[in-house]
Amino acid sequence: MYREGTWVSAEVILQSLDYFGIVVFAMAGALRGEEKSLDLFGVLVFSIVTATGGGTLRDLLMGNLPVNWVKDNAYIWLALAGGTFTFMFTRFWRFPVGALAVADAIGLAVFTVLGADQAAHMGFSPLIVIVTAVMTGCVGGVIRDLLANEIPLIFHREIYATAAIVGAVVYLVLQAWGLDERVFPWLAMLVVLMLRLAALRWDLRLPRFMRTLPRA
Amino acid sequence: MYREGTWVSAEVILQSLDYFGIVVFAMAGALRGEEKSLDLFGVLVFSIVTATGGGTLRDLLMGNLPVNWVKDNAYIWLALAGGTFTFMFTRFWRFPVGALAVADAIGLAVFTVLGADQAAHMGFSPLIVIVTAVMTGCVGGVIRDLLANEIPLIFHREIYATAAIVGAVVYLVLQAWGLDERVFPWLAMLVVLMLRLAALRWDLRLPRFMRTLPRA
Amino acid sequence: MYREGTWVSAEVILQSLDYFGIVVFAMAGALRGEEKSLDLFGVLVFSIVTATGGGTLRDLLMGNLPVNWVKDNAYIWLALAGGTFTFMFTRFWRFPVGALAVADAIGLAVFTVLGADQAAHMGFSPLIVIVTAVMTGCVGGVIRDLLANEIPLIFHREIYATAAIVGAVVYLVLQAWGLDERVFPWLAMLVVLMLRLAALRWDLRLPRFMRTLPRA
Repeated sequence: MYREGTWVSAEVILQSLDYFGIVVFAMAGALRGEEKSLDLFGVLVFSIVTATGGGTLRDLLMGNLPVNWVKDNAYIWLALAGGTFTFMFTRFWRFPVGALAVADAIGLAVFTVLGADQAAHMGFSPLIVIVTAVMTGCVGGVIRDLLANEIPLIFHREIYATAAIVGAVVYLVLQAWGLDERVFPWLAMLVVLMLRLAALRWDLRLPRFMRTLPRA
Repeated sequence: MYREGTWVSAEVILQSLDYFGIVVFAMAGALRGEEKSLDLFGVLVFSIVTATGGGTLRDLLMGNLPVNWVKDNAYIWLALAGGTFTFMFTRFWRFPVGALAVADAIGLAVFTVLGADQAAHMGFSPLIVIVTAVMTGCVGGVIRDLLANEIPLIFHREIYATAAIVGAVVYLVLQAWGLDERVFPWLAMLVVLMLRLAALRWDLRLPRFMRTLPRA
Repeated sequence: MYREGTWVSAEVILQSLDYFGIVVFAMAGALRGEEKSLDLFGVLVFSIVTATGGGTLRDLLMGNLPVNWVKDNAYIWLALAGGTFTFMFTRFWRFPVGALAVADAIGLAVFTVLGADQAAHMGFSPLIVIVTAVMTGCVGGVIRDLLANEIPLIFHREIYATAAIVGAVVYLVLQAWGLDERVFPWLAMLVVLMLRLAALRWDLRLPRFMRTLPRA
């Protein structure tokens, strides 16, 4: 959906969603920093890392260097804005966690499909499209959790990453069916969003790893 | 030993060993995920990271982009297969930990020499050949331990990395002596394997870092 | 200040300072390894990672591949020398922590300005110059802390990173004012050094993240 001249308004909407995802992920990162009692600098680093980590790893592995936020400074500015706002806001008001979870789900949906889209346009195989989509959507949060010295949340709240996987598969299937490229990315995004919101609403989970035998 | 037309069967054996190392490291990663009570997604991420982490960092630092598993999807598929098998298997049977340790030693030997081989063929200095060899052999496990929120094991079970260093040095010495390139990589692999198995068998260790003075 | 033929002695001094920063950061990394009771291999890895981590990430994100220490082996040799020296020294004598803190401040100042300088000469925007400067100065220590399974120190001892930010801004301002490129990088370095030493001397801090409301 990046093709020039196909549907300008779609590109504008998409870019807006991308920036929206950056801001939302930055806010989620800042809130994690708050839980860890970090100072302003630490909070802003958490914001930047959470917002840009997925896209950065994607660009590194694909060889798209310099990485995206070096070329388009808006990514860093928006992450700083989201982090600073959250830093100020939480000093005086309680943060609407429910609203943030919904916004975070939108960010996940957008980043996942943007990642799938980029890998697909570079001609990579379906497997790599899926891996790239999941990385773009989830790795920012993983690095944030590592910096916070915790086992990354996505290994526990598993429908997070699973929603990204399903969304990438839907993207590939709709593309294979020959749907209009101005339409199917939005459907894939909607699938990720719906899955993630359903998981939040009804607390859905994947099976855990269990032994039926006692340890040796 | 990557030269075309020199010794086809050696290349086939080498590629097979490489894939074997991927599967074994994936299983080791999955077992770590099990210890952390991760769900299926988390276990598979641990498998992929452990199996491909070393080669990925090597390719990043050397500038071989996109990284190897983006070009050859077999790496990811095999890691997924090893992780899924381990996930299913450990639900019903006790995992043969001894067999895994031997297989892991084979993986270490193969990855170490593959790393040394690639750096040597790119014309890098002996020091970089050694660093690349150790990274390719060990970094997957390091990232796995970081995700599991633990100090990486290789900082404690130190003959692991030391075996890789010795193997890389042997590779360089045999190469300098002008040995046939169809032979000496196998000897270097054997050295790593023997060292690692000996370390496992007799619990060999390097000296620890100690103060002889009390803390200030 | 990398321009050929402008002021040879400045380049020599700068390269010397760069190497000095590597050694000092390697020693700081080794001391952290000592606190964690690592063996010699672990201590040397901590030395290498702390000394080269910032420059490595900078080169990765900018696409300067292979990374600097692959091209100039002196980086790794010096890190190994600093780590080995510290390993031996601390077995018999108490380490002069005060002297190390001053040396570490010099390393921070040098790496920060070298990072800013490289990004500026590649034609990146002021924002990216600042981000690159901070990364080059601080990321080595962040990776070291991650390997040691701790929340990175810079999120707590915050004037560390803040000194780097201020130094990068000073670099940009002096450059914009048209100062001689043989002079202003040294001024920026001096600012970082003075700020860091002042922070150490008077224990300066940034405001922490606080809620004025109780948690939900």
